[in-house]
Amino acid sequence: MTNDAPGALSLIRKEVHSELTSYLTLQREYLSEIGSELIPVCDALESFLLDGGKRLRPLFAYAGFCASGLTPTQEDIRAFTSLELLQACALIHDDLMDGSDTRRGKPAIHRHFENLHQQGAMAGLSGKFGEAAAVLLGDLALVWSDHMLHTSGVTSDALLSALTVHDEMRIELMAGQYLDVRESGEKTPSVDRSLRIARYKSGKYTIERPLHLGLALAHRDSSERKNLMYILSSYGLPLGEAFQLRDDALGIFGDPAVTGKPAGDDLREGKRTVLMAMTLEKANHNQRSIIESSLGDPDLTSKQVEDVRAAIIETGAVKDVEDLIDGLLSSALEAANSDEIAPSARELLIELATSAIRRSH
Amino acid sequence: MTNDAPGALSLIRKEVHSELTSYLTLQREYLSEIGSELIPVCDALESFLLDGGKRLRPLFAYAGFCASGLTPTQEDIRAFTSLELLQACALIHDDLMDGSDTRRGKPAIHRHFENLHQQGAMAGLSGKFGEAAAVLLGDLALVWSDHMLHTSGVTSDALLSALTVHDEMRIELMAGQYLDVRESGEKTPSVDRSLRIARYKSGKYTIERPLHLGLALAHRDSSERKNLMYILSSYGLPLGEAFQLRDDALGIFGDPAVTGKPAGDDLREGKRTVLMAMTLEKANHNQRSIIESSLGDPDLTSKQVEDVRAAIIETGAVKDVEDLIDGLLSSALEAANSDEIAPSARELLIELATSAIRRSH
Repeated sequence: MTNDAPGALSLIRKEVHSELTSYLTLQREYLSEIGSELIPVCDALESFLLDGGKRLRPLFAYAGFCASGLTPTQEDIRAFTSLELLQACALIHDDLMDGSDTRRGKPAIHRHFENLHQQGAMAGLSGKFGEAAAVLLGDLALVWSDHMLHTSGVTSDALLSALTVHDEMRIELMAGQYLDVRESGEKTPSVDRSLRIARYKSGKYTIERPLHLGLALAHRDSSERKNLMYILSSYGLPLGEAFQLRDDALGIFGDPAVTGKPAGDDLREGKRTVLMAMTLEKANHNQRSIIESSLGDPDLTSKQVEDVRAAIIETGAVKDVEDLIDGLLSSALEAANSDEIAPSARELLIELATSAIRRSH
Repeated sequence: MTNDAPGALSLIRKEVHSELTSYLTLQREYLSEIGSELIPVCDALESFLLDGGKRLRPLFAYAGFCASGLTPTQEDIRAFTSLELLQACALIHDDLMDGSDTRRGKPAIHRHFENLHQQGAMAGLSGKFGEAAAVLLGDLALVWSDHMLHTSGVTSDALLSALTVHDEMRIELMAGQYLDVRESGEKTPSVDRSLRIARYKSGKYTIERPLHLGLALAHRDSSERKNLMYILSSYGLPLGEAFQLRDDALGIFGDPAVTGKPAGDDLREGKRTVLMAMTLEKANHNQRSIIESSLGDPDLTSKQVEDVRAAIIETGAVKDVEDLIDGLLSSALEAANSDEIAPSARELLIELATSAIRRSH
């Protein structure tokens, strides 16, 4: 956080929180009228959206808007906030596909509805009900994100210019998600393939496209916008990859009390990350056998997690990943310092880059 | 089909097919550039969308547009066609949630990707891969439907007026889908609850909202539109319920060679339909025990299916449902014959109502 703008990020986060709260209150009224059976759906999505989240995508959209030199209105912030609903869809479906039990220290949505089914002694299979609910709550969050953007109150011109970026962003997200799922079916890891997934899931979806969406909403002259879009990509793409690499490291070395995920969760899931691909490329016979025998084993003990962590560090891959992160961060910061970007946005971009990389969850 | 407009519906269907083909070709180019691993995704969605489907929602949108007295352009038809992609999302996620093996006589998407995983001898569990692929292909189809609508080429005013109906329609769809899933957790059936589900899943999503969407794209003066919207609702809501009741009957009595689903599939799934709720309300002790012992049994033999069918007919519920369908159809036809609706649209609406109800699949 810079000294001259104390709490800028947390002020924006508060506004995002308040916009989400208002939107969800309206939707609760609407759905309750259709049927009281929908109240647990509203409860679950409210808790999911309001009890946590770094609000990264709205923050990047905010910074992208400011890059134009303009200041976002309340309507613009509402439009940025819609990205949190899209992210809720991605996370709910992700947890379902990965079979993850927890999210932000609470039961994942499919587990939550499985529990509701059991507690209500409902007919049928609880697990199946939980899965179906997660499919539909994800779908609903996706549709809500669109609806929140459309009803944000931004001008028609701004909205139409945002829709193009928004659609592209969502197609890239689904493509990246599929590549990620597909990757876990590969027999051998690949640094190149994992980097491409990081590029689509994080570089583009988490950072570059939110920045572009914000800029599109500012609706500057399109030739001027083109140059700024290019600079924001030079910032967003390397930062996104660095962000994903940080995620990879936290998935293995993160503190469960801070990440809200069990220790070594990515090891148990056998996640094909860039860090893991780099590790296996560098591992000697002994390190490789320790790692490969544990990867994807859902019953890994904490002792085993410790052994794998030690082996990963020994290969030197963690140091390589940290060096890579540093290099990517430098590229991003260089782009952020570009003269074409309005000074207030420059500070935000730098603050965001640093907090996205130097984080513990 | 009326005599003076031979093949009107099939001509529109051909245009819908051709618009889908063009859109999917563009998307295939785009996704193939991201990675060749996405080609099976394009193949599967192309086959799903081009090898079948009644195109009901685009047809109703077409009729809703015509109700205004205007004639849809190619761009309008492209916008109507986007509803087929939304429907693809609904069906792919539906089959996943129900655990249905087949769709239109071919493996359901989750089974198809399970098979690809096996054939490719990929790492990990085939079933899990199939399920994850179905989640993502449904999500992608949902995002594509939006993208196809946004890029249809209709005027900005028409698009903005369509977005409101479109969002409402999709929120109602997800709410209806959840109520449907929730219903299977109820221990006793309810005609009222099942009728409400039919109202949201079919009355609104399949018929009323597509009609409204078409009308919104015609973009008539909003006060004039209001009256037409009301008449189209008076047509669409009863027709939608009748449509769902026909679906219920086909799910139990349909010919597998025509429906593309195994005989008595809804019995094996234990689907909570209006027909089943009415059956159980009317059943005597003996009929009830035959039906309840078979409902939801995935291993039902064809002899057992026959016995349950006979018991359902014996209760008189089938006749009641057919009477109900006739009454609902009459209400719909009466609304269709309203003077406010342009004559060309009247014919289309009548033809559509008849073919939606007097169908065998």
